[in-house]
Amino acid sequence: MRDVAVIGIGETQIGELWDQSLRELGIKAGLKAIRDAGVSGDEVDMLYVGNMSAGKLINQEHVAPLIADYAGLDDVPSVRVESGGASGGMALAEGYISVASGMDDIVVVGGAEKMTDVEDDQAKEILSSTADQEWETVFGATFDSLYAMMARYHMEEYGTTKEQLAQVAVKNHANAAKNPNAQYPREMPKKMVVNAPMVSEPLGMFDCAPLSDGAAAVVLCPAEMVDSYRGDPVKLAGVGHGSDHMAVHDRRNIGAMKATKMAAEKAFDRAELKPEDMDFAEVHDNYTISEIMAIEDLGFFDKGDGGPATERGDTELNSEISVNTSGGCKAKGQPVGATGINQAIEAVQQLRKDAGERQVEDARYGLTHNIGGTGASAVVHIFERWSE
Amino acid sequence: MRDVAVIGIGETQIGELWDQSLRELGIKAGLKAIRDAGVSGDEVDMLYVGNMSAGKLINQEHVAPLIADYAGLDDVPSVRVESGGASGGMALAEGYISVASGMDDIVVVGGAEKMTDVEDDQAKEILSSTADQEWETVFGATFDSLYAMMARYHMEEYGTTKEQLAQVAVKNHANAAKNPNAQYPREMPKKMVVNAPMVSEPLGMFDCAPLSDGAAAVVLCPAEMVDSYRGDPVKLAGVGHGSDHMAVHDRRNIGAMKATKMAAEKAFDRAELKPEDMDFAEVHDNYTISEIMAIEDLGFFDKGDGGPATERGDTELNSEISVNTSGGCKAKGQPVGATGINQAIEAVQQLRKDAGERQVEDARYGLTHNIGGTGASAVVHIFERWSE
Repeated sequence: MRDVAVIGIGETQIGELWDQSLRELGIKAGLKAIRDAGVSGDEVDMLYVGNMSAGKLINQEHVAPLIADYAGLDDVPSVRVESGGASGGMALAEGYISVASGMDDIVVVGGAEKMTDVEDDQAKEILSSTADQEWETVFGATFDSLYAMMARYHMEEYGTTKEQLAQVAVKNHANAAKNPNAQYPREMPKKMVVNAPMVSEPLGMFDCAPLSDGAAAVVLCPAEMVDSYRGDPVKLAGVGHGSDHMAVHDRRNIGAMKATKMAAEKAFDRAELKPEDMDFAEVHDNYTISEIMAIEDLGFFDKGDGGPATERGDTELNSEISVNTSGGCKAKGQPVGATGINQAIEAVQQLRKDAGERQVEDARYGLTHNIGGTGASAVVHIFERWSE
Repeated sequence: MRDVAVIGIGETQIGELWDQSLRELGIKAGLKAIRDAGVSGDEVDMLYVGNMSAGKLINQEHVAPLIADYAGLDDVPSVRVESGGASGGMALAEGYISVASGMDDIVVVGGAEKMTDVEDDQAKEILSSTADQEWETVFGATFDSLYAMMARYHMEEYGTTKEQLAQVAVKNHANAAKNPNAQYPREMPKKMVVNAPMVSEPLGMFDCAPLSDGAAAVVLCPAEMVDSYRGDPVKLAGVGHGSDHMAVHDRRNIGAMKATKMAAEKAFDRAELKPEDMDFAEVHDNYTISEIMAIEDLGFFDKGDGGPATERGDTELNSEISVNTSGGCKAKGQPVGATGINQAIEAVQQLRKDAGERQVEDARYGLTHNIGGTGASAVVHIFERWSE
């Protein structure tokens, strides 16, 4: 398999973008990435698009050729990849495999979601349709309540506190305050998070990531071609997929995510790296509890130490490991199908040393972690500074 | 890239399967394919699932891990691939790339759709959501009417007749009569097709493929592993993707499908074969006009000769080229996300010489052709008898 580089990135502002449609957002991000890479449209061999539910959110299936077409890339074949919240990351994995295999050379991988064209309740219901419809949601379990169960279990089993959960939000908002594309680029006092109205106990309003519109794209090429494009490629060093039972009640331990562990193990193996090597990580913090579990399951902290580690500040910018320097789903925002690509963009900016106030000093290795549904699918990517 | 073989196939009956859910269908097809290949669940590295719109049809996104889980493959990572009607074929292409690259060894590629849990009108509307929502369907254009425009143009430009369109249905029903898994395994008199009530002029009821439930799966492995499994592998010799403008009104010529031509060209190149080499082809006949255009655009007949060729009987079983020996979407049925995999299964059965009464004599090479929406995406696969 060939080595693969990211040579271009582009993302839109994330937020409630009432005046922009899915196709507009997709086009904007895609063209930014292509321009950033310095490739021309004719050179693009394939487009992968991560999207969770355009069918239900905007009544449009078959969104990949739609975005390609309106971006002027109607000669570029395209396909949509869906895996709930992991759609973007899964699309990136397919793009990686395609370039690594030699099937394609220049591949654009985008992700996009337009969530504000429906009522909030409806959007929440659509999110919940990535859980098990027949055995969970039909009985009234929502996404929020399923994650709340995990949080409650984690608190019982490992002593994690509501303050520790809140600290995830506080940290991620502090990072988002330094990110011009973030939906909520402002700090949030811990008291406000802890005392927020309950969504599903123990998760309050500020333990939950928002509903967002947004799109993001990256351009990939094989190692042997990087010299033809811009001077600061980033290596996509490893990819790993993971899986678990669909319904939360079927899992052996709901205080950990098997899919995350599997995906991380494979990605570290392929990259020949270890958790200790990572300087930063973008982890899937759709809820504050998700980040706590992720930093444990990815191997950065022992099981049960995710909460205390967060409280100690070990995941703050330029601490032991800088986690969600972008602001994460929590504060950068969560345009679901784009999330995995937004994460990759943060990784590339960090490794290009282009992250401004959010820059992780001497960043050499970083990881992105994207999960689908309540954790039935996961994908991990490892990024590395380019070396000749 | 490594050579790739199909070593297992499995499909469900296609039809209005009121008593079976999407997950049941998916599991059934997947387990049949795994058993057919003689692999065990632990050996499977990855599952790709083609599905058009489970979100809207059964209120369930994230279907890939759902099917994996309930098939007892919860340790197998999975991802859904969507490209409208080409979802199955696009999933197969991703599976192929994954094995060819060396990323995975044993890959299961499935496709499934459950279309009869909603009213017919609603299913038709969902199918139409693979056309351009903002510029076509919102103004009342349906899938039927968009294909009817193509048919009308083809008739005007090339003299194609309603009888020639009808002959596609007659032929495909004759083939389906020999296929035990077909939704309509019976012959249909030409008069009945020609005189059927109009759906969208010039397309009558029997010019349109039905709404169907069904699932299908294949198992892939690299060439070097075929000896470990059953004795009659089939080579997946080439894959090609194609694309076009999303909206029909943006295309230069609506009497031909650019996406099909692109996809075929690439697939033939990769397989180092030509249209003349093909003994049979499963083409995407969601409407009778689609088959006429496909056999021209794939290079089997000159543009405009698709209708006459069909009338001459050149596409019948064991004629010049045997087209849709399975019965096609028209008569075998059209469980949308499964279609591309159903086609691959017919190809494998033909090359294994396992197609019974439908057997193409001395079949050595065959092609499958799967299109998404009204032709904005397409994918072509070429299959070849295995030779040591």
